[in-house]
Amino acid sequence: MTTQTPVAIVMGSQSDWQTMRHAAETLAALDIAHDARIVSAHRTPERLFAFARGARDEGFKVIIAGAGGAAHLPGMVASLTPLPVFGVPVQSKALSGQDSLLSIVQMPAGIPVGTLAIGRAGAVNAALLAAAVLALSDTGLAARLDDWRAAQSAAVAERPQDD
Amino acid sequence: MTTQTPVAIVMGSQSDWQTMRHAAETLAALDIAHDARIVSAHRTPERLFAFARGARDEGFKVIIAGAGGAAHLPGMVASLTPLPVFGVPVQSKALSGQDSLLSIVQMPAGIPVGTLAIGRAGAVNAALLAAAVLALSDTGLAARLDDWRAAQSAAVAERPQDD
Amino acid sequence: MTTQTPVAIVMGSQSDWQTMRHAAETLAALDIAHDARIVSAHRTPERLFAFARGARDEGFKVIIAGAGGAAHLPGMVASLTPLPVFGVPVQSKALSGQDSLLSIVQMPAGIPVGTLAIGRAGAVNAALLAAAVLALSDTGLAARLDDWRAAQSAAVAERPQDD
Amino acid sequence: MTTQTPVAIVMGSQSDWQTMRHAAETLAALDIAHDARIVSAHRTPERLFAFARGARDEGFKVIIAGAGGAAHLPGMVASLTPLPVFGVPVQSKALSGQDSLLSIVQMPAGIPVGTLAIGRAGAVNAALLAAAVLALSDTGLAARLDDWRAAQSAAVAERPQDD
Amino acid sequence: MTTQTPVAIVMGSQSDWQTMRHAAETLAALDIAHDARIVSAHRTPERLFAFARGARDEGFKVIIAGAGGAAHLPGMVASLTPLPVFGVPVQSKALSGQDSLLSIVQMPAGIPVGTLAIGRAGAVNAALLAAAVLALSDTGLAARLDDWRAAQSAAVAERPQDD
Amino acid sequence: MTTQTPVAIVMGSQSDWQTMRHAAETLAALDIAHDARIVSAHRTPERLFAFARGARDEGFKVIIAGAGGAAHLPGMVASLTPLPVFGVPVQSKALSGQDSLLSIVQMPAGIPVGTLAIGRAGAVNAALLAAAVLALSDTGLAARLDDWRAAQSAAVAERPQDD
Amino acid sequence: MTTQTPVAIVMGSQSDWQTMRHAAETLAALDIAHDARIVSAHRTPERLFAFARGARDEGFKVIIAGAGGAAHLPGMVASLTPLPVFGVPVQSKALSGQDSLLSIVQMPAGIPVGTLAIGRAGAVNAALLAAAVLALSDTGLAARLDDWRAAQSAAVAERPQDD
Amino acid sequence: MTTQTPVAIVMGSQSDWQTMRHAAETLAALDIAHDARIVSAHRTPERLFAFARGARDEGFKVIIAGAGGAAHLPGMVASLTPLPVFGVPVQSKALSGQDSLLSIVQMPAGIPVGTLAIGRAGAVNAALLAAAVLALSDTGLAARLDDWRAAQSAAVAERPQDD
Repeated sequence: MTTQTPVAIVMGSQSDWQTMRHAAETLAALDIAHDARIVSAHRTPERLFAFARGARDEGFKVIIAGAGGAAHLPGMVASLTPLPVFGVPVQSKALSGQDSLLSIVQMPAGIPVGTLAIGRAGAVNAALLAAAVLALSDTGLAARLDDWRAAQSAAVAERPQDD
Repeated sequence: MTTQTPVAIVMGSQSDWQTMRHAAETLAALDIAHDARIVSAHRTPERLFAFARGARDEGFKVIIAGAGGAAHLPGMVASLTPLPVFGVPVQSKALSGQDSLLSIVQMPAGIPVGTLAIGRAGAVNAALLAAAVLALSDTGLAARLDDWRAAQSAAVAERPQDD
Repeated sequence: MTTQTPVAIVMGSQSDWQTMRHAAETLAALDIAHDARIVSAHRTPERLFAFARGARDEGFKVIIAGAGGAAHLPGMVASLTPLPVFGVPVQSKALSGQDSLLSIVQMPAGIPVGTLAIGRAGAVNAALLAAAVLALSDTGLAARLDDWRAAQSAAVAERPQDD
Repeated sequence: MTTQTPVAIVMGSQSDWQTMRHAAETLAALDIAHDARIVSAHRTPERLFAFARGARDEGFKVIIAGAGGAAHLPGMVASLTPLPVFGVPVQSKALSGQDSLLSIVQMPAGIPVGTLAIGRAGAVNAALLAAAVLALSDTGLAARLDDWRAAQSAAVAERPQDD
Repeated sequence: MTTQTPVAIVMGSQSDWQTMRHAAETLAALDIAHDARIVSAHRTPERLFAFARGARDEGFKVIIAGAGGAAHLPGMVASLTPLPVFGVPVQSKALSGQDSLLSIVQMPAGIPVGTLAIGRAGAVNAALLAAAVLALSDTGLAARLDDWRAAQSAAVAERPQDD
Repeated sequence: MTTQTPVAIVMGSQSDWQTMRHAAETLAALDIAHDARIVSAHRTPERLFAFARGARDEGFKVIIAGAGGAAHLPGMVASLTPLPVFGVPVQSKALSGQDSLLSIVQMPAGIPVGTLAIGRAGAVNAALLAAAVLALSDTGLAARLDDWRAAQSAAVAERPQDD
Repeated sequence: MTTQTPVAIVMGSQSDWQTMRHAAETLAALDIAHDARIVSAHRTPERLFAFARGARDEGFKVIIAGAGGAAHLPGMVASLTPLPVFGVPVQSKALSGQDSLLSIVQMPAGIPVGTLAIGRAGAVNAALLAAAVLALSDTGLAARLDDWRAAQSAAVAERPQDD
Repeated sequence: MTTQTPVAIVMGSQSDWQTMRHAAETLAALDIAHDARIVSAHRTPERLFAFARGARDEGFKVIIAGAGGAAHLPGMVASLTPLPVFGVPVQSKALSGQDSLLSIVQMPAGIPVGTLAIGRAGAVNAALLAAAVLALSDTGLAARLDDWRAAQSAAVAERPQDD
């Protein structure tokens, strides 16, 4: 059941919203309530601690965290909450998100972050993965996700078109 | 409650077991039933299709998939089931798992794979992430996971020791 | 003899056509019939299976497959058909096709994909490699390919020109 | 029918044989005659020219070329013969074959090299790809290749075994 | 003056001590007191917060932080203290410290970590950089550091020796 | 107290100023005097020697050095002065600063360069790290730096805004 | 003495001229005669052989070779002539010249190519390196090169300028 | 004629001799006198300046410089002498010489270093390139180099041998 707000989307800065809003839009398309916040691991560590420590009590079930460069937000959130955390590496300027990806995915044994692709695709997929998790105990959402996937398949044209 | 078998662990070959058994051991430590199978995307594509198409009906809730090199197993399983899929990049010989990692994490928008770290750490963490997902609707498991995490924190010594 | 349609060009999405049409154009320049289709490994796995399983019976002799990011199409086609498969890594946004290249070329022993360069050059060359294969049993095509190569050599100017 | 010697295996040095003999063994397993030679692009350029220029007249149909580091052999052979050329990047000491791979696969439009994986897997697969090409006009070989692939699939165990 | 303990060395786990003790030994050689602790950003986030928040009040002047993989410790410490933080990327298993390096050095504008080389060299140099900082207000240490550097220069032989 | 000029900013060429002026601006915002100079390790090695040899006697306490490509300036300055040196990898054209980063950070044991992020973020952070060092013996600056950090934290919005 | 034409500049295609003309311009600035030609290793292998085999007899003393992607031209020229060969990696589209660099620099023991930086800087420097070689037996050129270097040093401003 | 000592081999540390002695041995095989010295750019910058400034007056004609990691020696020598400098990237521990290579080859326009392959192959080839340069004005050496190259070609076996 998703009557409350099961998904939190957190990101390191306003500039990450250009990427992370694709997560928000995908959740909305699946009728999943979410709350989007800026939580900078580096500039607002107290906010990070407060958010992550309290996330389960706030009623969140899944956390989507996006960050770029030395991207510590997803891993630090995961260290502070038992909830599943999905990380989105935001494409960085100099290294195109290779730094973001490694900073998020290469977590040591003990604290997992389920990491998605760099950039927009990763943001969309973080939402879909959150949906898949929530659908395990929400048959309505499971049906909506099945429909979404079926529609996606049906939308693939048989042949390429010249522009 | 985990009376059935909620987690499937699939891997591309026998040689991946050296890595993936760490997922199995971690699930066992948390008292989560699992089933470990070899499903090669490339050598047994029919088995892949049959497994992934039927995974939900078999009663699985989460799938952990490990593979190395041009690692297609996690993504192809994810394309064939609505269940959450967590991918473990197995360390490859020539490229140390960089190929495995990119082949698993860089999925296009539409089909998510929550990707963990290369190698053993990733296998352990895939199990912990599966546990976090299952704990959302299993208070007993949630308590066990909390205990596991607390024990892990408590086991960190205050100061380093010379060998 | 190439009276039927010996070459299938498959690609993961409409956006890949910008790259893959260079394969189509090169085949056309060599008077080789081809059929271009969109087959998404991830969004249309059933179509992938049906296509690849039936490719030999459809009369195809060579398959050119292009995809980007976690590019699973070429390898999965190769797992499902005994026909020679040539893969084209499409240039991806964040990683410039390094992910596409590794996802295609690093196949495990047992299932080969002959991989070409990233992007347009790879698409042209996949067509030329298909032509070289077909020319083994088609003397007319062999002559056309020889002419094409001779013309290419002759077109190289002796000295560079200022713009 | 493969009564003559349809496949040439060339490599840059004796040390590459440790990798390339896996191509030879795989061809032998499929009952395909082959000829293995050392042809160094850099130390024996005349031999390279003589071999590649004469390969079609020698009766070869497919050329497998392996080299490491700044691996120029596959591309230079391909520039000198219209036959299909499949390249195997040999794992190099410092860069683990990343240099070999890029030197072979990133050919410019006009001269294709179908590139396989770094190291042993690539050598095996070059042989299998050559077999797939030759099988297009050799029904006996096609049957043997189908059997080989079926046996490979059948050999995949259902479940992993502890050592 | 260095009568108190001006340098804290923190590391993510016991296994990092193999690298970080070179920092401790270098500080000892320069007669700089230090305190070495295990502070895991991921397994002991509370300890991280307590340590970093209190480091200035404990009397530390410089913090040396070493970690590997998705190495968040140096950056998170830097977010929580105004003291200068120097980061040491520990060599990781799969990626040889490339992940550690990018996770530490690619900090966003606002929170600096002065990053040293991967592994032992970085640990030694973190100590030397801490010494250079402390020497700005400690003429005794400045003299010891000058001597150390002069001795280092004098120890370089004029000609290489066969083993 | 910062009545003199405690920070030197040196860079390899005029083109680096586009990056390095962010260091200058950040120092200015913290009311720290600085002197910005062009010192090319390669084109003006005599100037490099004169500057670095004399930096301590000129009264500098910290040196910020920025360079791109085969970036030797920070390391060579560090070899010639006992002062703390902070290096800024300038983003290069072909390799996006990966060459700059490795050329600066991978110093051998014995001569440290505290390295910051590639590009503008690194320039800002080099200034902040210099400030943290100087603040150790300048309570006024320590207070200004605390204020700067607090203002930075306070400036982070709670929620992302659509453009 | 440089009355004849001591330097040949060869490049793989017309498009490389945008890079390689910087070599030509630098040679011209030093009053060194040169001859610029297009020699494609892949599209005109016969021309490559004829050129490289005859280069010493044509009177060339140094060869500058530029190419991109799987850049085989410099190494193949070096395999066919005892003259010193300097290679310029042209910046490629997808991989920014990383492929060009590795294809040129990673030559096996026995056939050297002195490799310069990717792109324009490498082209300029190939000319300067050729000049340094020729200056060993041409005191007039040695003086001109000294002057050129002195002028370069003198042209470095003391301080950066805002735009 | 090479009665004096035309080649200097310099390296950053004793540990580089394991690589650089291959340059010495190759020069010896060609009967070229050389002088091998340790010159650390970082630990002995004065020695670096003295050596490089005086190299032409000492009678050297070519300088071979090897270093690893943040390898500044070749470029700094080149900044201080008009003689041709050839750089050898020594294989480093963590990054296998990728850092060494980029630190040496990516020199800015104005100061060239002709860079060879990472490790032993590069050391051998630096010697061969020095020989090619010296042979331009030494017919005896030119003949010896031709013989060396011919012997190298002749030593390549026609076919690979099983061990």
